[in-house]
Amino acid sequence: MNEPKPLSAQAPATPRYAILVAGGTGTRMGADRPKQFLNLLGEPVLLHTLRRFADAALRVQHCVVVLPAEQFDTWQQLCTEHSVTIPHVVVAGGITRWASVRNGLAHLAHEATGIVAVHDGVRPLVSAAVIENTYVAAAERGAAVAAVAPKDSVRGLAQQGSYALDRSRLRLVQTPQCFELHLLRRAYQLPELHTFTDDASVVEDLQPIYMVPGDYRNLKITTPEDLIVAEALLLAERSAV
Amino acid sequence: MNEPKPLSAQAPATPRYAILVAGGTGTRMGADRPKQFLNLLGEPVLLHTLRRFADAALRVQHCVVVLPAEQFDTWQQLCTEHSVTIPHVVVAGGITRWASVRNGLAHLAHEATGIVAVHDGVRPLVSAAVIENTYVAAAERGAAVAAVAPKDSVRGLAQQGSYALDRSRLRLVQTPQCFELHLLRRAYQLPELHTFTDDASVVEDLQPIYMVPGDYRNLKITTPEDLIVAEALLLAERSAV
Repeated sequence: MNEPKPLSAQAPATPRYAILVAGGTGTRMGADRPKQFLNLLGEPVLLHTLRRFADAALRVQHCVVVLPAEQFDTWQQLCTEHSVTIPHVVVAGGITRWASVRNGLAHLAHEATGIVAVHDGVRPLVSAAVIENTYVAAAERGAAVAAVAPKDSVRGLAQQGSYALDRSRLRLVQTPQCFELHLLRRAYQLPELHTFTDDASVVEDLQPIYMVPGDYRNLKITTPEDLIVAEALLLAERSAV
Repeated sequence: MNEPKPLSAQAPATPRYAILVAGGTGTRMGADRPKQFLNLLGEPVLLHTLRRFADAALRVQHCVVVLPAEQFDTWQQLCTEHSVTIPHVVVAGGITRWASVRNGLAHLAHEATGIVAVHDGVRPLVSAAVIENTYVAAAERGAAVAAVAPKDSVRGLAQQGSYALDRSRLRLVQTPQCFELHLLRRAYQLPELHTFTDDASVVEDLQPIYMVPGDYRNLKITTPEDLIVAEALLLAERSAV
């Protein structure tokens, strides 16, 4: 029973779902449109992200895109403009990220089992390897998130001055954050807390959160310079292929 | 005595010094040369960094560049090739960053007073504003370092899984790290500890470390993708001028 399974035995694997959360209204970027719709080398940021999860090798069965309701029309237009044929459903977001993920999760209510990835719509550079590894780790351990060690020294704020922390024991958390479907459902039945910053913090009282190596290139586009950086990294990725 | 001084009264200010530490041997980048000599838009990374501190408005009196002794010739050749006329002295580094900074500091032994900035030679994008603000804060408070809040959620590693930390109370520490000369001297007379990751950690037992807003663009070039990112940010900076 404990023999390693051949790869082929993994083929009829646990079903995989993805919830791509994009709640930006554009005000923070100082741009004329929400950051998920900003132009990244000719395509909206969110479309790049959706393409990453639509990679056939990942075998994601359902992609749920969570957007503010008032952006549905814009997204529809962008999908038409860019001839998007990737199957996905669009669900209205809530006031907070927590509420948005809960709404996305509600759309998977008819699914009995599987692993759900929650991913920031504005992390368009996530690699297939990081997505795959996070799904696999969550299937084994219930909850797994992509994370990287800080490159810089880390300090905590004190009443007077600050104090050094051991950065080798710290991780900067990215997405995807992957969970067994029933576990994520259970976590989202509990009340929302103001300390929730991501899905790991929603789930952590129910299940230890395992961390999978993320990628420094998997940046979240939140400032104008992030878009410049993302363009450069994407060009480098394409020229390396 | 407590009236705010006019700007002109600040002209004969505390002397300012800079120690630029570059200890890279190139092995980590997988490149053919140490990362401080990598080509960033036509010039070595370290030369960009030196230029930032040579900005006349900053009034830095002495720039000390700390390099592995076996790289002195290469740096000399690069300075000739790029017609560098910025006054600076080159000092041999030690085995650790701590030993390198101590060697750089020894070169300031004849100075009686002032503020010393210690800066990573491979942070070529530091802005004049961040340098200025860190010098000013150190003159007021003894010890000041540039730092930014993490953009991502932060988790600590636990025996099983991990736990969420409050990122609003954490800072990712950059350089410059500025100190009163006598304070930094005193700190570097104490024995080296393996917990030293930067100069703030060397000084913190003697003086509270004040943190000044850094800049997300002030990245440290340690991986190949960092060089790509630095190029993109530098081009954006130049086109914005």
